[in-house]
Amino acid sequence: MFPGNVLSIEDLSVQAMEEIFQRAAYYKSEDRGVAFSALKGKNIVLSFWEPSTRTRVSFELAVQKLGGTVLDLRPEQNSEKKGESLEDTVKTLRSLGADALIFRHGAPGLFGRISRTVDLPLISGGEGCYQHPTQTLLDIFTMKEAGIVLSGLEVVIAGDILHSRVARSHLLALPAFGARVTLVGPPALLPRELVPPGLNYTYSFDDVLARGGVLYLLRVQMERHRRFFSSPGEYAALYGLNEKRLALLNNETFVMHPGPVNLGVELSTGALHILEANCPDKVLIQKQVRNGVYVRMAVLDLLLSGRMV
Amino acid sequence: MFPGNVLSIEDLSVQAMEEIFQRAAYYKSEDRGVAFSALKGKNIVLSFWEPSTRTRVSFELAVQKLGGTVLDLRPEQNSEKKGESLEDTVKTLRSLGADALIFRHGAPGLFGRISRTVDLPLISGGEGCYQHPTQTLLDIFTMKEAGIVLSGLEVVIAGDILHSRVARSHLLALPAFGARVTLVGPPALLPRELVPPGLNYTYSFDDVLARGGVLYLLRVQMERHRRFFSSPGEYAALYGLNEKRLALLNNETFVMHPGPVNLGVELSTGALHILEANCPDKVLIQKQVRNGVYVRMAVLDLLLSGRMV
Amino acid sequence: MFPGNVLSIEDLSVQAMEEIFQRAAYYKSEDRGVAFSALKGKNIVLSFWEPSTRTRVSFELAVQKLGGTVLDLRPEQNSEKKGESLEDTVKTLRSLGADALIFRHGAPGLFGRISRTVDLPLISGGEGCYQHPTQTLLDIFTMKEAGIVLSGLEVVIAGDILHSRVARSHLLALPAFGARVTLVGPPALLPRELVPPGLNYTYSFDDVLARGGVLYLLRVQMERHRRFFSSPGEYAALYGLNEKRLALLNNETFVMHPGPVNLGVELSTGALHILEANCPDKVLIQKQVRNGVYVRMAVLDLLLSGRMV
Repeated sequence: MFPGNVLSIEDLSVQAMEEIFQRAAYYKSEDRGVAFSALKGKNIVLSFWEPSTRTRVSFELAVQKLGGTVLDLRPEQNSEKKGESLEDTVKTLRSLGADALIFRHGAPGLFGRISRTVDLPLISGGEGCYQHPTQTLLDIFTMKEAGIVLSGLEVVIAGDILHSRVARSHLLALPAFGARVTLVGPPALLPRELVPPGLNYTYSFDDVLARGGVLYLLRVQMERHRRFFSSPGEYAALYGLNEKRLALLNNETFVMHPGPVNLGVELSTGALHILEANCPDKVLIQKQVRNGVYVRMAVLDLLLSGRMV
Repeated sequence: MFPGNVLSIEDLSVQAMEEIFQRAAYYKSEDRGVAFSALKGKNIVLSFWEPSTRTRVSFELAVQKLGGTVLDLRPEQNSEKKGESLEDTVKTLRSLGADALIFRHGAPGLFGRISRTVDLPLISGGEGCYQHPTQTLLDIFTMKEAGIVLSGLEVVIAGDILHSRVARSHLLALPAFGARVTLVGPPALLPRELVPPGLNYTYSFDDVLARGGVLYLLRVQMERHRRFFSSPGEYAALYGLNEKRLALLNNETFVMHPGPVNLGVELSTGALHILEANCPDKVLIQKQVRNGVYVRMAVLDLLLSGRMV
Repeated sequence: MFPGNVLSIEDLSVQAMEEIFQRAAYYKSEDRGVAFSALKGKNIVLSFWEPSTRTRVSFELAVQKLGGTVLDLRPEQNSEKKGESLEDTVKTLRSLGADALIFRHGAPGLFGRISRTVDLPLISGGEGCYQHPTQTLLDIFTMKEAGIVLSGLEVVIAGDILHSRVARSHLLALPAFGARVTLVGPPALLPRELVPPGLNYTYSFDDVLARGGVLYLLRVQMERHRRFFSSPGEYAALYGLNEKRLALLNNETFVMHPGPVNLGVELSTGALHILEANCPDKVLIQKQVRNGVYVRMAVLDLLLSGRMV
């Protein structure tokens, strides 16, 4: 059955994810600027406590394309200022007749607790360092669309594993589709105790460049970075995909990134230009962005129609 | 006749309020997720200078359910920053073709003055310590819906009367329907000179608990509170509805609150749970929230269609 | 051909401007509160880095009246905070399927550079001290609508020329329609080197009051003003249109202002009241505001339908 909330990728069975991908493919193929009607008369509240462009905008577009209305509840102007708890705000939204709440928040687990007491569908748009389930969905959808076979696939996830909610969701979902994940990053950002048992990891980027069917570069979260590195340049030297390292890359490898890219840090401008010029089909970054809209349409549709899968 | 603005509950005759209630009941009974059309092609500007969740969201939902479009004019980004007066902003909105302005603002009387020079329908979503007319409308609608007969009804309004725009609007409207109001609160928040002539008031919460058909708890405005009390706990001890005081409460009494509730201050978590478990029909708090949407739909519809009543 | 972006008034030929005026007149005459469909299914992103009421709201109304959806990308909450460049944000919006971006920004030329690498229609809502093309369009539309013949028309532009993006756009467009422009303002705000060759300018306001077919008062940008004047009063004494100066004004002269007016600075309250009472047809300020909606509808329609002109 499709879950009542999408807070963690664990909420979704492989079957539920496949249903999402089918629905997303349908919406992508039928998107010709006319509104669908799956959310007609539905009011979806969006509340983002942390900055976002692509996740926020793609959810907003997803609701609008499905004929629903978006209600933007900006944290800085709601009644939290009057001492109202977030749980009470969610209860209020349910009483007001909201049909779902899409949120981004820094405190992991908070909305999980709220979901146990308030009966309003909740969709995570990224929660602290915990999970970012729709990012994982759109990434796997994008892989499949590019013709990548997940069973037996080698995926190298590189960079700031410590702070990455994207990596956490990927680590749970990719193996369920038969992919093998290798983590790579500097020791400070890839602590041994964080690596799930049985998972490969290494501190040498060069050693794994030839390996993967997919090289998934994470965004270095610069704001938290200074504690771990003396400079972005030092990071780039050791773990950045630059022109020199391109030579080591298997030319069957697909390059992905959840965005926004720190050009010159995890990916050099030169390397990006060469990839885009020589093997544009292998750089999936802009496709990931676009597919985010369709995957989120599918999630909203299935969650709110309460469909079985 | 229905007024041109809804700034004070005094703008509305009893007949106009009854018309609002009828219309709200109609919208509530017919609400099945399809848009109504009373505001089709209408552009309603929302501008809130003070934080709000339920008032703001319910107005926004009300406009959307009626088929209108909401235009969010955020104070922090409009031309006030360039030295434009609020009156000029309202004039500009009228010139731009806006059909109404819903506002919340801290300065009482400001929009009243503006309404005398600019011909744009204005709806208050709460104005300083002055008035909150649609809150009073939704509260009376909720009472009637619960089967409460207002003629001869005893209403106890408890708490921070001094700062309450809700109380000010209630004091004007409830007697018009034949209800008798008693005010109760600490002397610092219920100054004698503020009590209208002929109205009952007391400083002893326990004395009035058995009395009322409705116990209307006000939100203690914590941000202003420190000037009047040493601690929220001290307030709760004297004027909070807690488990002990529940025994004193007439079991025919309905409990209302405009939200957001300060749990542990004017209402204890324990008392709320007992009420919700033992006599859920007597706790109207979530119903007030929900009815806010329908009452505001009715106000918008009647104001903009210019209907006689 | 209609350009791919509207960043500067220079992007538009006289023929393209005439097409815009025709289309705007059509929308104005047909506006009866029902939505047009030129932008049906289109998603227009609005991102304003500087405060605005009339430009922002009129663009938003224009999109809504044409049946499109507005997506509000607030700078304070997008991924610039994560170090994303504006160019990458625009690329992301294009990948997400946005149909156009309307922006206001303080950095002149920034979006011009972006337009050369990203294929998303860009519309300026005012860019630094550089250009404000839709303001010029709505002003010329308003002149024509008032029956003013532009060929041979004398236009006096008065005030803070130095900081005015409006003046910069007007100086390029008005001569293309055969109008003659005279600039007037204090030397500090009208530096000789800024005056295009062949253009008239003077430092004496009184000398040009009798001259113009149109007196176009600029907003004194008070926030930048203190560097140039000891007080707004000093400016008003020398360059404000007050009751005394009204006597010098040719009574065939039309008075325009892009708003918001600083009453008591570039225009006195008394003078405005006299003008509005005695010759309301000559004060075009509120008409400029209203026409902004229709002119922007026309720009959006023509830009997105890719019409030839």
